[in-house]
Amino acid sequence: MTASDDPGGTAHDWGSICNTRDLSRYVPFVAGGFHLGWIHRTRVGLVRAERVFTVLPDLVVLGEGLATPAQRTAAVAELAQRWRELGVVPGWRDELYDVVPYPGGPVVMRMERALTRLFGLINIGAHVNGYVRDGADVLMWVARRSPDKPTYPGLLDQMVAGGVIASMTPEAVARKEAWEEAGIGAGLIGPLRQTSAVTMFMEHGDVISRDFEHVFDLELPADFVPRPVDAEVAGFELYPVDKLLDVVTGSAEFKPDCNLVVLDFLIRHDHLRAGDPLYQQSVLGLRRGVL
Amino acid sequence: MTASDDPGGTAHDWGSICNTRDLSRYVPFVAGGFHLGWIHRTRVGLVRAERVFTVLPDLVVLGEGLATPAQRTAAVAELAQRWRELGVVPGWRDELYDVVPYPGGPVVMRMERALTRLFGLINIGAHVNGYVRDGADVLMWVARRSPDKPTYPGLLDQMVAGGVIASMTPEAVARKEAWEEAGIGAGLIGPLRQTSAVTMFMEHGDVISRDFEHVFDLELPADFVPRPVDAEVAGFELYPVDKLLDVVTGSAEFKPDCNLVVLDFLIRHDHLRAGDPLYQQSVLGLRRGVL
Repeated sequence: MTASDDPGGTAHDWGSICNTRDLSRYVPFVAGGFHLGWIHRTRVGLVRAERVFTVLPDLVVLGEGLATPAQRTAAVAELAQRWRELGVVPGWRDELYDVVPYPGGPVVMRMERALTRLFGLINIGAHVNGYVRDGADVLMWVARRSPDKPTYPGLLDQMVAGGVIASMTPEAVARKEAWEEAGIGAGLIGPLRQTSAVTMFMEHGDVISRDFEHVFDLELPADFVPRPVDAEVAGFELYPVDKLLDVVTGSAEFKPDCNLVVLDFLIRHDHLRAGDPLYQQSVLGLRRGVL
Repeated sequence: MTASDDPGGTAHDWGSICNTRDLSRYVPFVAGGFHLGWIHRTRVGLVRAERVFTVLPDLVVLGEGLATPAQRTAAVAELAQRWRELGVVPGWRDELYDVVPYPGGPVVMRMERALTRLFGLINIGAHVNGYVRDGADVLMWVARRSPDKPTYPGLLDQMVAGGVIASMTPEAVARKEAWEEAGIGAGLIGPLRQTSAVTMFMEHGDVISRDFEHVFDLELPADFVPRPVDAEVAGFELYPVDKLLDVVTGSAEFKPDCNLVVLDFLIRHDHLRAGDPLYQQSVLGLRRGVL
């Protein structure tokens, strides 16, 4: 998202923005007997050219002859390589995601991460709120995404966040990313508290973006300073609660799902209360689900 | 709910149970241009007998000639008294609730609390998790509802909980109920932290039960013992986390919405984690909304 996508106005109701979509522009994507995602109607032609799909007027079904997750994974991997060469899969990652009909549901297949966006699948993530206390005040470390990231370059993000790769647990991903992105090792990350989950179901450009983010809180020593390790993060900044509140309710500076994670943190920690502008919309937006 | 309503089995997935309903048995209830609730089809005859309603095949509309909230409130109050005399409004409370299309939305009218159930309206509540720390352990004070309560007699409840009466804030209700139900005065209740909100949208008997509960956490001194003050509570019990987990995931001992409030507390406080049985279903159940 760039400044030109900024919804404008003084109040940014991300609870609503992150749950806004026009599903009439999409057709359901089904495999293994489960409704898994949403394909934009402009991509139905691409899908129709592949024998592995059955294209009905308002439905795309992946190979009814493919009986096992492994068979589906192999069939999609083969066409994904061809699509990649055609240039229709931006941001190739070389990471496999589990494809599930709902978080915690059966793994119907595995799919290259970049491809999951084209099918509108649920992306499972792990986000870590890194914060410090200064007396009664709370300050949060936030990451500035690298200008070279394929998605949402230059926007704000959680201190640590990553997609849950197939066969890893959310907590293992959080610990791995803490080290890779922020130089936070096992010694410091001891009390990684799993405290929430945040969902998003949003149309973004011509894809349906559905996220289920496992949320962890990590209280850090006051003198700790995260340092960018890999190239994913441009830098880290320490935000007092008042500045955080201004940014998540009054700007489009955060990546949308990360904005929700901050709102959820502020609500859980009693910094955004009933009576505050955007409190009620934020709470409702955080209760909209991902299905 | 009594023992005979117990869904049975060893695991009780309250996140799902509290979001299970068959809306085909109900017709939408509309007033002031807003969809407000759900009326069971067996009650459409009762409604049809009142001139103030327009009954369409699959819709009930309250008096299109009633232009203001005050006019709607007066019209419904008049028929509510007659229905009360007919015996079709169990559990009369003499408390007015704001009627809203969604939490935080415009007040379309006010209505006697007992009547809101018949119309499937959203009930706004305020629940307080009262807990104490014992070293690294957490114990929660829970209330046993009086056997004489009109709804859910004898079941477990939050230490303090109440419906948000018209013109009161959720926090004011929490403080009032803390004093009335548990003898907790202003001195002890200083740091009442607003930390979450829990939704429920459940068919219970022949009504649609929709709740939006503002959730507060209150850490109490280890030597504090709540005492029943009014007749709403039979007594208080102190539950360690392990016992709480067993009860909310393995029994029907809690009033359903209160069960969700405990699950939400256990998740936020890192006592119910990814990988635990029922974690994922509980999280999803807490993200299903109330609309």
